[in-house]
Amino acid sequence: MPPQRATLLQVAQRAGVSRSTASFVLAGRHLDMRISDDARQRVLRAAQELDYRPNLMARSLRTKVTRTIALVSDTLASDPYAGKAINGALAAAVAHGHLLFIGETEGDPVVEERLIADFLDRQVDAFVYASMFTRYVRLPKQLKGHPVVLLNCLTRGARPAHHQIIPDELAAGWSAATTVLEAGHRSEIYLVGTPDEQVFAGRERMAGIREGLRAGGTGLAGTVACDWWPDSAYEAVAGSLTAGLRPRALICLNDRIALGAYQALREAGRRIPDDVSVLSFDDSDLAAWLRPQLTSISLPHYQLGWQAVEKLLGPQSDPAVLRLPMPVRRRASMAKPPVS
Amino acid sequence: MPPQRATLLQVAQRAGVSRSTASFVLAGRHLDMRISDDARQRVLRAAQELDYRPNLMARSLRTKVTRTIALVSDTLASDPYAGKAINGALAAAVAHGHLLFIGETEGDPVVEERLIADFLDRQVDAFVYASMFTRYVRLPKQLKGHPVVLLNCLTRGARPAHHQIIPDELAAGWSAATTVLEAGHRSEIYLVGTPDEQVFAGRERMAGIREGLRAGGTGLAGTVACDWWPDSAYEAVAGSLTAGLRPRALICLNDRIALGAYQALREAGRRIPDDVSVLSFDDSDLAAWLRPQLTSISLPHYQLGWQAVEKLLGPQSDPAVLRLPMPVRRRASMAKPPVS
Repeated sequence: MPPQRATLLQVAQRAGVSRSTASFVLAGRHLDMRISDDARQRVLRAAQELDYRPNLMARSLRTKVTRTIALVSDTLASDPYAGKAINGALAAAVAHGHLLFIGETEGDPVVEERLIADFLDRQVDAFVYASMFTRYVRLPKQLKGHPVVLLNCLTRGARPAHHQIIPDELAAGWSAATTVLEAGHRSEIYLVGTPDEQVFAGRERMAGIREGLRAGGTGLAGTVACDWWPDSAYEAVAGSLTAGLRPRALICLNDRIALGAYQALREAGRRIPDDVSVLSFDDSDLAAWLRPQLTSISLPHYQLGWQAVEKLLGPQSDPAVLRLPMPVRRRASMAKPPVS
Repeated sequence: MPPQRATLLQVAQRAGVSRSTASFVLAGRHLDMRISDDARQRVLRAAQELDYRPNLMARSLRTKVTRTIALVSDTLASDPYAGKAINGALAAAVAHGHLLFIGETEGDPVVEERLIADFLDRQVDAFVYASMFTRYVRLPKQLKGHPVVLLNCLTRGARPAHHQIIPDELAAGWSAATTVLEAGHRSEIYLVGTPDEQVFAGRERMAGIREGLRAGGTGLAGTVACDWWPDSAYEAVAGSLTAGLRPRALICLNDRIALGAYQALREAGRRIPDDVSVLSFDDSDLAAWLRPQLTSISLPHYQLGWQAVEKLLGPQSDPAVLRLPMPVRRRASMAKPPVS
């Protein structure tokens, strides 16, 4: 069991002052309460000697502030990379003198309702409502009236009621197109991965890619359809190459797809980047581990987490959708097209 | 700002009973306090209509239990895979009706002291003290007298004062040796990766590998020294192959090393597993993504997190070191040695 706490009364008695005097000194109000420096020194010494620790929970009953926030997500902590959003949120919370509760709902509304009720019982000051994949959500009714920021998710409607922090996937798609164009490619540019219209990242990346290529006077030569996983991408790219496809540049919708594409290109004897340039999205650890290292457009997980908490605890502003930039990490997988 | 809470008095007034009666009903004490079923129904209805929520923080001042625990780690949330330990801890905490605070110290003792003080201020019931890499630690003095379980770390000394949950790296090393022997290998078995004596996982894995191979009547033919990263492993294995090394089995100290070894073997035209078998430790996502898929010995991150919280909140037992099994994930990278 925890050791017994020293009480304010014990501190006061040891210092030879009243309980109120001790309280004012420890609250830093010695000046406006005209407490002598001698009494103040005795209180501070007594508090130190007794290892006095103010009961923040009792104090929070008076001030109504617990200096805790809760991060409620579907499965953020489970995902290797999205977990970095928690890391960013944690750092920002500490920078603002707050502690962070985390909770996962696994997308179950019943679990979510109970979890939020539990957090409300503990009187957390504010909420980060987070999603592992960028998507539209309906905010739980229980959160109404509480400070909330949405992390990697959005609500529908013209005017947002809360800040919503998402990656700028549209601009990322445009960056992908620009990077391919700047390398000198104008033709035989293929997309790898099925851009499911239901998936926010896929839809926005696609829109950006199409607009960017169109602005450069060209377009996609076609799509190699596959799931967003290495084995599916390997099968699809290998099949396309066997069927006679001669791509010069592959835009892969994520790094896992790029891994599968690398494996298929290698087996077919196509060199990266000499024969085929490859570009991807996410910039996970994998991108830097592949040979040649993969040029990838970075998902700013840490910054998403940091900004969500910053908007919650920092200077107040009108609720808005904040799209964070996705920088291009240029590595060795892009080159100018071979002379044909 | 949060909406105003309904008070117990408001519930009592709406139900037409005294404050004490309402309190007893809501605490489930209607039977022993002989409260009529009619009065009980009115209180419950009033509580529902007013969305009454008992103030858990006020209650915790009386019961001294907040039903919160804190996970204090060096950098657990930052690591893609160790983050799964948080996921396991979270699931076990919820299963016991507790909520989880998390905090990271980045190994800084000053940050750690402040963080723990902050958690103590919020009167968390118990602590999980966690490390990203398995290692020996000195427990902060402030935690003395509080319920603590160590996650992925150990204290020195004959009798542990707290439960210590670690992966069984020694048995994992033995499993690695057995897996190689079972495939039929007796010679030209090489270790890849420098087994730093200062690193717990490296030291224990090595001891297990040596013992296991010795029990099978053989031993390592040598070590390809490198850091535990893909590029270092690639350079080292490529250099060794160029210098004439003809390994039949490679035991890689982690999956990242195995990735580098795969890249070097492929460039040298050595087939996996026909020419060279490869085995590894960690069983990260990468293992299942490589071609051929990599046999790897699994680090049970989720179970480590779960067990730490289970030992903290579940049935009490004498403090002990609990070594969790590391299962072998058999995939396609092991085969019997080629006939020479």
